[in-house]
Amino acid sequence: MAGNTFGSLFRLTTFGESHGIAIGGILDGCPAGLQIDMEFIQNELNRRKPGQSHITTQRKEEDKVRFLSGIFEGKSTGQPIAFSIENTDQRDKDYTHLKDSFRPSHADYTYQVKYGIRDYRGGGRSSARETACRVVAGAIAKLFLSHHKISIKAYVSQVGPVKLEKHYRDLDLTKTEESIVRCPDATIAYKMVSLIEDIRKDGDTIGGIISCVVIGTPVGLGEPVFDKLHAELGKAMLSINAVKGFEYGEGFNCINFKGSEMNDAFIHDVRTEANPRAIRTSTNHSGGIQGGISNGEDIYFNVAFKPVATLMQDQQSVDGSGQETTIKGKGRHDPCVLPRAVPIVESMAALVLADFILRNKCSKLI
Amino acid sequence: MAGNTFGSLFRLTTFGESHGIAIGGILDGCPAGLQIDMEFIQNELNRRKPGQSHITTQRKEEDKVRFLSGIFEGKSTGQPIAFSIENTDQRDKDYTHLKDSFRPSHADYTYQVKYGIRDYRGGGRSSARETACRVVAGAIAKLFLSHHKISIKAYVSQVGPVKLEKHYRDLDLTKTEESIVRCPDATIAYKMVSLIEDIRKDGDTIGGIISCVVIGTPVGLGEPVFDKLHAELGKAMLSINAVKGFEYGEGFNCINFKGSEMNDAFIHDVRTEANPRAIRTSTNHSGGIQGGISNGEDIYFNVAFKPVATLMQDQQSVDGSGQETTIKGKGRHDPCVLPRAVPIVESMAALVLADFILRNKCSKLI
Amino acid sequence: MAGNTFGSLFRLTTFGESHGIAIGGILDGCPAGLQIDMEFIQNELNRRKPGQSHITTQRKEEDKVRFLSGIFEGKSTGQPIAFSIENTDQRDKDYTHLKDSFRPSHADYTYQVKYGIRDYRGGGRSSARETACRVVAGAIAKLFLSHHKISIKAYVSQVGPVKLEKHYRDLDLTKTEESIVRCPDATIAYKMVSLIEDIRKDGDTIGGIISCVVIGTPVGLGEPVFDKLHAELGKAMLSINAVKGFEYGEGFNCINFKGSEMNDAFIHDVRTEANPRAIRTSTNHSGGIQGGISNGEDIYFNVAFKPVATLMQDQQSVDGSGQETTIKGKGRHDPCVLPRAVPIVESMAALVLADFILRNKCSKLI
Amino acid sequence: MAGNTFGSLFRLTTFGESHGIAIGGILDGCPAGLQIDMEFIQNELNRRKPGQSHITTQRKEEDKVRFLSGIFEGKSTGQPIAFSIENTDQRDKDYTHLKDSFRPSHADYTYQVKYGIRDYRGGGRSSARETACRVVAGAIAKLFLSHHKISIKAYVSQVGPVKLEKHYRDLDLTKTEESIVRCPDATIAYKMVSLIEDIRKDGDTIGGIISCVVIGTPVGLGEPVFDKLHAELGKAMLSINAVKGFEYGEGFNCINFKGSEMNDAFIHDVRTEANPRAIRTSTNHSGGIQGGISNGEDIYFNVAFKPVATLMQDQQSVDGSGQETTIKGKGRHDPCVLPRAVPIVESMAALVLADFILRNKCSKLI
Repeated sequence: MAGNTFGSLFRLTTFGESHGIAIGGILDGCPAGLQIDMEFIQNELNRRKPGQSHITTQRKEEDKVRFLSGIFEGKSTGQPIAFSIENTDQRDKDYTHLKDSFRPSHADYTYQVKYGIRDYRGGGRSSARETACRVVAGAIAKLFLSHHKISIKAYVSQVGPVKLEKHYRDLDLTKTEESIVRCPDATIAYKMVSLIEDIRKDGDTIGGIISCVVIGTPVGLGEPVFDKLHAELGKAMLSINAVKGFEYGEGFNCINFKGSEMNDAFIHDVRTEANPRAIRTSTNHSGGIQGGISNGEDIYFNVAFKPVATLMQDQQSVDGSGQETTIKGKGRHDPCVLPRAVPIVESMAALVLADFILRNKCSKLI
Repeated sequence: MAGNTFGSLFRLTTFGESHGIAIGGILDGCPAGLQIDMEFIQNELNRRKPGQSHITTQRKEEDKVRFLSGIFEGKSTGQPIAFSIENTDQRDKDYTHLKDSFRPSHADYTYQVKYGIRDYRGGGRSSARETACRVVAGAIAKLFLSHHKISIKAYVSQVGPVKLEKHYRDLDLTKTEESIVRCPDATIAYKMVSLIEDIRKDGDTIGGIISCVVIGTPVGLGEPVFDKLHAELGKAMLSINAVKGFEYGEGFNCINFKGSEMNDAFIHDVRTEANPRAIRTSTNHSGGIQGGISNGEDIYFNVAFKPVATLMQDQQSVDGSGQETTIKGKGRHDPCVLPRAVPIVESMAALVLADFILRNKCSKLI
Repeated sequence: MAGNTFGSLFRLTTFGESHGIAIGGILDGCPAGLQIDMEFIQNELNRRKPGQSHITTQRKEEDKVRFLSGIFEGKSTGQPIAFSIENTDQRDKDYTHLKDSFRPSHADYTYQVKYGIRDYRGGGRSSARETACRVVAGAIAKLFLSHHKISIKAYVSQVGPVKLEKHYRDLDLTKTEESIVRCPDATIAYKMVSLIEDIRKDGDTIGGIISCVVIGTPVGLGEPVFDKLHAELGKAMLSINAVKGFEYGEGFNCINFKGSEMNDAFIHDVRTEANPRAIRTSTNHSGGIQGGISNGEDIYFNVAFKPVATLMQDQQSVDGSGQETTIKGKGRHDPCVLPRAVPIVESMAALVLADFILRNKCSKLI
Repeated sequence: MAGNTFGSLFRLTTFGESHGIAIGGILDGCPAGLQIDMEFIQNELNRRKPGQSHITTQRKEEDKVRFLSGIFEGKSTGQPIAFSIENTDQRDKDYTHLKDSFRPSHADYTYQVKYGIRDYRGGGRSSARETACRVVAGAIAKLFLSHHKISIKAYVSQVGPVKLEKHYRDLDLTKTEESIVRCPDATIAYKMVSLIEDIRKDGDTIGGIISCVVIGTPVGLGEPVFDKLHAELGKAMLSINAVKGFEYGEGFNCINFKGSEMNDAFIHDVRTEANPRAIRTSTNHSGGIQGGISNGEDIYFNVAFKPVATLMQDQQSVDGSGQETTIKGKGRHDPCVLPRAVPIVESMAALVLADFILRNKCSKLI
């Protein structure tokens, strides 16, 4: 119960510190027979990789994943899929000045008190470097979901005050990867990049919102009561570093509706293989989930990221004994994590959905 | 993995349908020796009970809890605490007209497709009646937390457009129970009640926001990576019926800050028993959680509720075969669930914190 | 992690003390659509019930099960199936003499130290009365298994020195219920009953062995490494009160074989619907399990029960403060629990197999 | 739920195939601050290593463990401890002749049917090579247990017909490591070695029994009902390759006792720090566990191992299509696995006890 495992049946356990020997994980429960597309996985990692553009950190990490087990002749065998990513950028530096120094709004202080010991080189276990492991497992989950014709598209919809007002239905989500900020609208993307450039010059950071859409979900994913589909999605997103909020469907905006405006009427639709009952909803305020279970409509949600805590400015703080000290702003960090967080959001969503597909296999007798 | 269990060590499993024989649950993992204050538990249930004021549903349910095990001579024994609440309002009505009818934005359709069968009398398992069980277990969790000097205070901060602008620090939270809408500010409470009265007259419903504050948390609750304190809080809240969004600390508002404004500087404070390191933060944008672990400051968060789906108006829908039909607006339902949801929010928060207190017992060797 | 839950997906949580208000449980994860045969369930309970013959305890307990949820119009709905059995024999006696007295080889002492409090009326939570709940859930598991054409037959194969030497293949297991001792061989059954009658006259108790056979298992049940089919069966059996040993296939007798004698050669068999590969083994020393996974042959195992600790004789002991005291032999107890334990063994085996059927749904991609 | 994880709080997940790139695991939940003695861990691995004497397989595997995370400046940090052992003996051989061939009493057939795919090089995931990972984690568990003054001593007590009749109390268990067969009695050890040498000459294999004693356990380890201490020990042992039976305390021998002979009377003892209540039992037929919870006396149990299935003799079998074929006896295998299994038995016992120590932290309120 130490918090390093995600999922019930499609289950990921990760390990590793930012400046240790390696990070990695074990993905257990992936069904046998899945073709593991190595190029796709590496490409997903590259979308998260530092140094991919001038608006991300310039840290150089190769982030090359090595699979250790569970794959045979290119396919999953049903056995645990272990993988590791060596920490090649782990330099032989002197970190002792960080030993008794707590960086503001980082996890240094809480880890120190909770465990009485911490790997003080970088963020250790609390570093966002851990999310590379989520992307590896999430990429495999995506391969699994593609068998079920489910696709997941995340994009940056807001950076600070620069907001993409259009609804996802009015966007061409195939264009997301065309901009370095991962916003599918070129005009807004340009403004976001400009803002991030300015923020970087000040040694400051900025937050924003990532929106995500899941298309092709069958009716029936999600479990009643505690493990509702949106509850697990929420937990998944909130577990990503720097996330402060989650909403799905109309989200916080639902307070502006009356029930008569918010309800999604059921309508008769064309009978297809994917919709054998020919039932759909005329609107989708619900965000594709009713009673915690997918209803076949698009699932969409928003995730709020705070500005990252590591600044290129000096900050006042205290040390382990409570004495005042100054934290120097140095190193190579992201002025805005959102562009690199897009594949992380997608990966976590993929892990949630893959898990629910397996869980749903047990809902009916036949 | 069927979704009816919450928590790792302090663990609740619930059962029951709205119109079945009884609802109830088993709370497993409550440490031995806890004095079980029956009056307090029943009082918590009464805060959630239907018919408590003219702005809630006028359904009559006694909601009297019966404990079946795990308590001996007034104290918990460390064995499972089972309890049941009989469904006394379960009338011998004819529900067959609901058999093939899917109420909009309810779980009728998704349950029917997922399971191929459903208890169509009322919402069955998906009814919010299940949350009474959360309040019973949450009340026990609160008793446990009071040993650790942790208290939880939720209140209604917004109903539709009527918003309580004040920060929780500027409110007297002891006044929450003085208003039937559970808003601690009398003026705003009055406006909320008026709005709900109007909505009720139209046979419509309205949503809003519940805010919650946790005071007295020690440093160290929460687990790294996937089981961050706010991730479990988020899942807990999102699992409550009608919830569409969750945010903690600055939440979605964090997009309006730069990192240099958002970071909470560590400061030297007075050394006390509760704060032996004499370390605090000068601000609390983080909402009492850093790196997923409590830092000793107040934890605060917001939960967005949609307007409930049951209307006193006719609605268009389809039946099981896809044929169009009309859902009649009748019965006794809540125009706004928020007043009754306040103890549910507190209960789920209490379950999360109690679980993390137990989990934290294993973090250090000594 | 308080130990009151069994199973991963087909999951039972039980509650209740021997002299509390009720015992019962929640069976979560039973797939929807299963016809729940109430008469069968009650009949299974009757096989375990006290007072069923002159060689069991003469305690009168009606053991009538009441289902509270999860069943609608006679079928499982996929929601938690809760049930309770009231403790009708719970008399208003004075138990205070047991408060500080530890019965030898019972759980009184270990519970007292572990929890600092215990329900000292009878065995409380540690009483074998709890196993009635396993029989209720096991009966539902059997109904589920019958859809998969799997049947489970347990019988008493040894009581003290009276041993049934025949292999299960040479027995007519339909005759087990014909004898009150539940041994399918009439001659041996007669000897067992005589021995138990003698033991009872002395106020003493006797142990023995229950053998169990599972017929009709498909290839593929059980998980690699830690959750091998026989490892879960072993845990299941060892969790039953008074069990001291478990063996499957040749069991402890395997030390009398060489590898060349023990190995089960694969042979070509007739191709049938149940055996599409036409592969069987010529012998079955393995007990139907290879590498922790069922191979389609019969699964068979033995469970050793100690003589129950409650005697009708006086015994020396100590009280809570370590002072010597005498435990009086009184009450109504079983001289030999094995006849009543037969349905418990079957129930636990049924729970294990039902769980693995669900788990196996996720092993392959298609 | 794919079976590769063991333990609730002190939790090991393993990965790897015998002829893949590496085997390894993640130990999650080890409390922070534990001094990790690398030499001790490697020494434990060496006790399990192939090629350690002339009666084991002559395969050469270095079995050098590499830790990837969770240890900082020699101590555990409370974060996941990941480790890997590269498969250096993994030669570039042609294994295609095994592709469609099922070795008798191995897992080839059951894995093939369950997953539709298998790594047919050696045993793949089902190989006992996986147990090296258990020894790594078990060694860390032993370091943790030594803080609690608990020690675990296993030894070979029977090989085929050669049996060590003495009770563990009459043996000097410090002498176990002096013999290559790991039997603490020199005379019996000599006979065991001779027998194994003979068996090896015939290309055959032989089984036996490993006995194990746990000394120094406090009162209170183990959980009620399903997770009894001996039930988890039983599952742990039965999950080891080739194990067919488990018994604790008097075990199967309990059928030779009456209740009046089997019960362990409580007696007044000297009050010590380790025994503050001054309560012990005069005998220990119970094997240190009553009601599933440790009572402070020695825990002892036996584990039966079958003769390993890999022979140096030709065997008849069938291939994937059911055609008859011959399995050639070749390679380098163990005539008797018991000497190498001693540290595996100890390791699994250590993992069980470490887990229960953590679980027991939550039993009482204070």
